[in-house]
Amino acid sequence: MNLDDDQKEALRKRLRRAEGQVAAVGRMIEEDKYCVDVLMQVRAAMAALGKVGHIVLENHMDTCVSAAFMAEDDAERKAKIRELMSVFARYGNFGGR
Amino acid sequence: MNLDDDQKEALRKRLRRAEGQVAAVGRMIEEDKYCVDVLMQVRAAMAALGKVGHIVLENHMDTCVSAAFMAEDDAERKAKIRELMSVFARYGNFGGR
Amino acid sequence: MNLDDDQKEALRKRLRRAEGQVAAVGRMIEEDKYCVDVLMQVRAAMAALGKVGHIVLENHMDTCVSAAFMAEDDAERKAKIRELMSVFARYGNFGGR
Amino acid sequence: MNLDDDQKEALRKRLRRAEGQVAAVGRMIEEDKYCVDVLMQVRAAMAALGKVGHIVLENHMDTCVSAAFMAEDDAERKAKIRELMSVFARYGNFGGR
Repeated sequence: MNLDDDQKEALRKRLRRAEGQVAAVGRMIEEDKYCVDVLMQVRAAMAALGKVGHIVLENHMDTCVSAAFMAEDDAERKAKIRELMSVFARYGNFGGR
Repeated sequence: MNLDDDQKEALRKRLRRAEGQVAAVGRMIEEDKYCVDVLMQVRAAMAALGKVGHIVLENHMDTCVSAAFMAEDDAERKAKIRELMSVFARYGNFGGR
Repeated sequence: MNLDDDQKEALRKRLRRAEGQVAAVGRMIEEDKYCVDVLMQVRAAMAALGKVGHIVLENHMDTCVSAAFMAEDDAERKAKIRELMSVFARYGNFGGR
Repeated sequence: MNLDDDQKEALRKRLRRAEGQVAAVGRMIEEDKYCVDVLMQVRAAMAALGKVGHIVLENHMDTCVSAAFMAEDDAERKAKIRELMSVFARYGNFGGR
């Protein structure tokens, strides 16, 4: 990743928030909270991680993908597209598995 | 979209397949099939549409996004990234809503 | 499915709406619309199908699952839970594949 | 949640695994790993959390939902269904938002 100090700090902050959400799941399990509340907290933790992913992806397009496309090396450009499509398939939701 | 005739025909074929899957949902409803089987067929139809989306997105990156990035117009490049992130957020699954 | 006439008609209506959204994708492909707009329309069609699935699932829990649970046949109850978990895994999004 | 000691321990183990995956994301950020590898690790962490959710949901159906359905209190049964549908909508993927 090509992150300047501010971006890295922003990403760390986001990750700490996700860790906080995960820790909350742990507490709810210990305290025998109602299943549905635990499920919602698990989802919140997943969403917090998703935001980390969002920042990483946006940065990836702004740096690595942009550089590869601008270099006008067709093979490299195609490789980057394939890679993005695989990220998309993994996260994304084309309804398949 | 910038599709040549072969690509357009491939996309049409994919879409017809999706339409076939949707039609199968309709038949299953009329024939009072078991709910879980209907649910799986609905999902198959969604996945078939997802494949249409997959082709469109890949083509988008190979044409529009590539052109915008190669033009080295920074504002245009940033706009394309924002657009891709919004597609990603809509389809994708960062765990949020 | 155990649908009364009103429920079946409501489901048909939902499905027709989904078919309309799928047809719109087809028109947009023929008219060479902008990729991102096509992608958003594909997603709208998927969402319309998702609403069909939502109704079917809700009905399934209200009829088949309820009946199985009330019958207090433990094997049957466990089978229904397993089935729901597989629907959930298929549609749902536990972040895995 | 109504978990016996073994189930609770299993859930704790799953959660610790998820925490390990989240920690790995943090290390990768510090070590400036390649964006796509970080994205895949973020997704792995989300999937590990998803498995926690999977166990909680299965347990929920086996205990709370089963009890509510067997009690044959129609209002309570409907409330549980609504709750499950909201979990499903939150995690699940009916293609909507």
